[in-house]
Amino acid sequence: MELHQALYLIPVGLSDAPYRDVMPAGNVDIIRGIRHFIVENLREARRFLRRCDASFPIDDCEFHELNTRTDRTGLEEWLRPLAEGKPMGLLSDAGCPAVADPGADIVALAQKMSLRVIPLVGPSSILLALMASGFNGQGFAFNGYLPIERQAKEATIDRLEHAARSKGITQIFIETPYRNNSLVELLAARLMPDTLLCVAADITDPQRENIRTMPAKAWKNTTYDYDKHPAIFLIHSTAHAPAAARKGQHKK
Amino acid sequence: MELHQALYLIPVGLSDAPYRDVMPAGNVDIIRGIRHFIVENLREARRFLRRCDASFPIDDCEFHELNTRTDRTGLEEWLRPLAEGKPMGLLSDAGCPAVADPGADIVALAQKMSLRVIPLVGPSSILLALMASGFNGQGFAFNGYLPIERQAKEATIDRLEHAARSKGITQIFIETPYRNNSLVELLAARLMPDTLLCVAADITDPQRENIRTMPAKAWKNTTYDYDKHPAIFLIHSTAHAPAAARKGQHKK
Repeated sequence: MELHQALYLIPVGLSDAPYRDVMPAGNVDIIRGIRHFIVENLREARRFLRRCDASFPIDDCEFHELNTRTDRTGLEEWLRPLAEGKPMGLLSDAGCPAVADPGADIVALAQKMSLRVIPLVGPSSILLALMASGFNGQGFAFNGYLPIERQAKEATIDRLEHAARSKGITQIFIETPYRNNSLVELLAARLMPDTLLCVAADITDPQRENIRTMPAKAWKNTTYDYDKHPAIFLIHSTAHAPAAARKGQHKK
Repeated sequence: MELHQALYLIPVGLSDAPYRDVMPAGNVDIIRGIRHFIVENLREARRFLRRCDASFPIDDCEFHELNTRTDRTGLEEWLRPLAEGKPMGLLSDAGCPAVADPGADIVALAQKMSLRVIPLVGPSSILLALMASGFNGQGFAFNGYLPIERQAKEATIDRLEHAARSKGITQIFIETPYRNNSLVELLAARLMPDTLLCVAADITDPQRENIRTMPAKAWKNTTYDYDKHPAIFLIHSTAHAPAAARKGQHKK
């Protein structure tokens, strides 16, 4: 792959899967040409780069850490190497950078400065879960974390189920992993019996990946243990008849 | 990668990019072990398989075509090889199967029959566009095609802009490619001046990829030509202050 003067958005693995199974080989060619990185976590980033290429000259690289604790003043200065013609890389802790993480701020800034942004292909738990759920319908929405407080959580579940049932829009959300089991229990009890719930756990993990769709009523009588496993939750309903898709016009 | 008794969801390229730049090498290992495929378009699927592996024994394979014209009765029969222990593959025309395409029906059926579904990593124009847009906020929603009829299209744009501005939810949509230019013109004129519009065109194309975010008012004074180029549209507003993300708890 030819290296451009651009901010490369570099996905990181979600699991212990070998990189050749979850990452295009071309990503490593790109990484090898970059010396300026903005990363969510310095230690994770160095480990990732070393796994990609054991001889990568990490000590010759410049790193900036961008996370929820980062002071946002002076971010423009971080992009100076790019403005001066050098390729840069953005890495999050896991998965695709700038989706539901602070990396989006630096991408927004690069766009504002009319700098080129190139996203690289890699594993996204949201997208892989959506594919394997079997949910299609009129569209989908990613809602981030559910509220922690019980009443607010229940109200959000009700609202998402209503959107899924009335508009046919698949609703995707996440939970802090140690609360996964109690969330599945709550969803099984609270959703209408025929609302479909998909739990996608340990995505891309060669041994543990498990993506399962069942009606809420079936989840009630099922044994599961998602405690502390990374998981994505999706709800959908076939009560809403999907409109015919426009055919063959678009690349997804 | 170890081959399982599963329905593999196999992404296809979006552009003429070499496969090593957009597809993990492990996908080809999986494909080599599969002889039963369900595909959106037979000709495209055969071309894809040949490009992955010039010596792939296509004539020894079984193919079923699943698209908007397919009669849905008897779909269960198609999954019989999988139920009997053989791995199967699902391919769409371009991008990730079962996202906004008829392939989701067969995934839903596999889930209903308690058959294992394994999604493989590959290029998704929706996700790559979202990453490179710089839009983050409270979540995102993919809305499929805008209505064709002018008044309904305008009403939808207004509704999506309202959701972006009031709830901070990035709104993603697509248009039939020969209408791209008139859509950008309409959006530039109709959106509030500071609403951000991202147009992501020719995603993964080594020469032509172009992903650009600007306020609506800047699009008005910009030259562009997206006519017949595959493109994704995203709107967002920084008018809505994003809530602090919960830190470091989740793999995206």
